[in-house]
Amino acid sequence: METIELSLSDIRKLTFDILITQGCDKKNASSISQIITDAERDGCESHGLFRLPGYIASLQSGKANGRAEPKLTTKSPVIIEVDGQKGFAPIAHEVGLPRLVSAAKTFGVAALSLRHILHFAALWPETEYLARNDLVGMACTSYLPKVAPHGTKSALFGTNPISFAWPRKDNHPICFDMATSSTALGNVQIAAREGKLVDEGIGLNKLGEHTRDPAEIIQGMLLPFGGYKGSALSLMVELLSAGLTGDFFGFESEAQNHDDGGPALGGEFIVAYSPSMISGEEWPEHTESFIRRFKSLDGAYLPGERRYAKRRDEGTRKINKALYDTIMKLN
Amino acid sequence: METIELSLSDIRKLTFDILITQGCDKKNASSISQIITDAERDGCESHGLFRLPGYIASLQSGKANGRAEPKLTTKSPVIIEVDGQKGFAPIAHEVGLPRLVSAAKTFGVAALSLRHILHFAALWPETEYLARNDLVGMACTSYLPKVAPHGTKSALFGTNPISFAWPRKDNHPICFDMATSSTALGNVQIAAREGKLVDEGIGLNKLGEHTRDPAEIIQGMLLPFGGYKGSALSLMVELLSAGLTGDFFGFESEAQNHDDGGPALGGEFIVAYSPSMISGEEWPEHTESFIRRFKSLDGAYLPGERRYAKRRDEGTRKINKALYDTIMKLN
Repeated sequence: METIELSLSDIRKLTFDILITQGCDKKNASSISQIITDAERDGCESHGLFRLPGYIASLQSGKANGRAEPKLTTKSPVIIEVDGQKGFAPIAHEVGLPRLVSAAKTFGVAALSLRHILHFAALWPETEYLARNDLVGMACTSYLPKVAPHGTKSALFGTNPISFAWPRKDNHPICFDMATSSTALGNVQIAAREGKLVDEGIGLNKLGEHTRDPAEIIQGMLLPFGGYKGSALSLMVELLSAGLTGDFFGFESEAQNHDDGGPALGGEFIVAYSPSMISGEEWPEHTESFIRRFKSLDGAYLPGERRYAKRRDEGTRKINKALYDTIMKLN
Repeated sequence: METIELSLSDIRKLTFDILITQGCDKKNASSISQIITDAERDGCESHGLFRLPGYIASLQSGKANGRAEPKLTTKSPVIIEVDGQKGFAPIAHEVGLPRLVSAAKTFGVAALSLRHILHFAALWPETEYLARNDLVGMACTSYLPKVAPHGTKSALFGTNPISFAWPRKDNHPICFDMATSSTALGNVQIAAREGKLVDEGIGLNKLGEHTRDPAEIIQGMLLPFGGYKGSALSLMVELLSAGLTGDFFGFESEAQNHDDGGPALGGEFIVAYSPSMISGEEWPEHTESFIRRFKSLDGAYLPGERRYAKRRDEGTRKINKALYDTIMKLN
């Protein structure tokens, strides 16, 4: 694979400039270019520049609003709703997350219901933000149907990711962010681009038959991870991020989607807990005793560590040359 | 397998009488016998009478308090803590859940932190209770180390179940309750009792090698379900039910456990959301449109349906004769 090298500030500026060219205002362009740069910084290739053509597609089709001014309302002291006004998720987070932090610190638990957003990024930025404010964070969002519920041969669920972050006093948060599908669709798209087969159990072709060909899976569907248990969790994500927010289920989003290849309209549900209030001030020492035990096991991996390791490297990032060329044509 | 038949009221009375004989007061005996009877009613053999010898063992060793009077405190209008006073979980639920319902209905979200309990039952009774009160419920609890984190060969996690329930207006809630391990330890114990092999991937022997022999797994350890993703969820359960409640992590519980074969001391974390407040009054119709779509798929299974089907049968339940004989010796 031919690559080029870009610095993180190059990535941010390139992305920002393209988004401005495509009609975003500065606040929207800034929040999206930051989230894309953060993904490249952390080695999350599938959520970095790889996503930019999709963002642009949703702007060009008129589905996404690049000048969104999200509206915040409080339904109770601990229920915050942000209407993203059909903008991308990052600017809605900028409006909602600080208020979520404040409510969770005051009352011990609070929830942020996001509606009318287009979420095309990873979810760890929002849960990591909560954990860096000494809160436990959980977030989930649904997406266009691409996953067959366990036992079926038809896509109904999205890849429906869940993210969770646990705060640590003198360390990066523990933080995972995972699709409830066998893998993220971005990974299958990258395998297709690179001409590689994927593992058995990742997905089905459009007839509902097992296949290892990523191109066939893109035409067909993914499977949930972990059989019926992962399928139940994917159902939970669909219910929380659509049923509970009141926004689109994946199949509803699909029914009115512009089919532009970009992200779709939907909701996201985020909850934050204050361990200081729930457990008391001794929570950091108590939990560190467990983390030490965990890390003492041969082969144990604390979620988030690979990202933080990549993050320590402030140098250039290798970018797929074909992707770069595609992006430059958008400018 | 030789079985005998007992009515549900026989099961409840038998269990209640034994618990009274073993020193429980009527309120504790009543709450435990109800939870055991409900499990047998719903076909959850691994959480029914099969658990009674374990309850008794923890009473006899002095670890469990059969006359517990749980103490409720509120840390904020939406954070409720119940100290179970080293009693079994069901009586702590009786004290805490009605207050959780009230807080969640008033504020939209509320959490119940349970400490100093011994949880030896399924978790669906508490989440189903929330859903029958028009709330979305989630619950999780950790347990004695029996599961090797992904990539390791040492037990650190418990089977660490998660339960989730979604309310429906004219129907049973959607409700799942699943170990984050490959299977519940009770299922491995039942396989051992019945002389059956379990599937590959369920567990490791005490050297950390794969085995299908349930007796070797009981001596060794289980694996998480779904590889690193299930392992991350098990870690989350440990952090929520011990780190966030302030109660024992599994390894702490083990360090002071009486090794009596019964349940161990620990915590449980429960959260409830009000869809009426968060989403608005149209939530039932909106979600039913998704559920109809889900149920229209060939092979789709809505979590909880098997239990509700069993529940409709008000007749006798088949009980393992050897288990029955063991139990009668406790009376």
